[in-house]
Amino acid sequence: MPHINFNNDLPGIRAALAYRPETAGPIGELTDLLLRDNEGLSRADRELIAMYVSHLNDCTYCSQSHAAIARIYLNADEELIELIKQDYRQAPISDKLKALLNVAARVQESGKAVTPADIEQARSEGASDRDIHDTVLIAALFSLFNRYVDGLDTVAPTDKESYVVRAQQVADKGYGTHLFKKLAVIRGLYL
Amino acid sequence: MPHINFNNDLPGIRAALAYRPETAGPIGELTDLLLRDNEGLSRADRELIAMYVSHLNDCTYCSQSHAAIARIYLNADEELIELIKQDYRQAPISDKLKALLNVAARVQESGKAVTPADIEQARSEGASDRDIHDTVLIAALFSLFNRYVDGLDTVAPTDKESYVVRAQQVADKGYGTHLFKKLAVIRGLYL
Repeated sequence: MPHINFNNDLPGIRAALAYRPETAGPIGELTDLLLRDNEGLSRADRELIAMYVSHLNDCTYCSQSHAAIARIYLNADEELIELIKQDYRQAPISDKLKALLNVAARVQESGKAVTPADIEQARSEGASDRDIHDTVLIAALFSLFNRYVDGLDTVAPTDKESYVVRAQQVADKGYGTHLFKKLAVIRGLYL
Repeated sequence: MPHINFNNDLPGIRAALAYRPETAGPIGELTDLLLRDNEGLSRADRELIAMYVSHLNDCTYCSQSHAAIARIYLNADEELIELIKQDYRQAPISDKLKALLNVAARVQESGKAVTPADIEQARSEGASDRDIHDTVLIAALFSLFNRYVDGLDTVAPTDKESYVVRAQQVADKGYGTHLFKKLAVIRGLYL
């Protein structure tokens, strides 16, 4: 049972976002900017970084959600996700993405865990300053999300199909920045 | 030396924010909403939670910055900050804030580390659902910030006075949401 009364029955992060739509507005906007950008890193790369950090933080809702979205972009099956979780170095992904997943894993542990050698490795595989910046910020953002989701003990659906349905909505329409902005205005009018 | 070329000489988080003003916009907006709100938790309470999480993450820039801002709101000297860092349970702060700093410390570790007993303790000291929500989200946000600041190896000034000067600007004018939105527009026009 969640630690607070969200006044809604939404799963995972969506319960917390709907509870406080004012803060959900900029959170959604930031997520759209970082995960739906295609410059340097593809949308699939970005979702895999999000999924992997969430997996390391043992956040079921976030890792399942972002695995499902990445699979849509890549048209990939669940095996790829499992391979990345078990040992991404052996997975059929680019060497650049492997080097960036290593940076993301360091960030998941602590900002101070990132070494010049980690960065140098990413650069040697073709990562630009912006790729490195975005990887660090996506890993940091999921350090936030995983704590927000589990720190309030939100509900992670056990029905796997529900993640697939939601993933298709996100792939089609994004993370719903505008929806939260509308919600915040409506709350301001009626509460 | 920072891990990437920020194209600016700003300290700490400000270097990363100015490097990518598009993402800085919603980050600044979220920070203003969470740290400059006065409902339930005071601005000083919110800054102390930010400072304490940053201290636990050993993030010099963030802990010094938010200590300096909290001191302005409280008109307090450095001793209070040191007492909270060493053992907040012995510090001259409210029992409610002590219970919420405990929740924040759990979130710093992991979202899953927050127990029903931690929440119950906070409630028994008068914390509302919204206070608990905001504490979890502030602690999660600084789990992001500390990783963003140190994961890119930004520069933390050694001159203590510089934190005091910046703290007064933040206390007077906020975290500069509008500035970053302007920067993003200017970059869009010229780059």
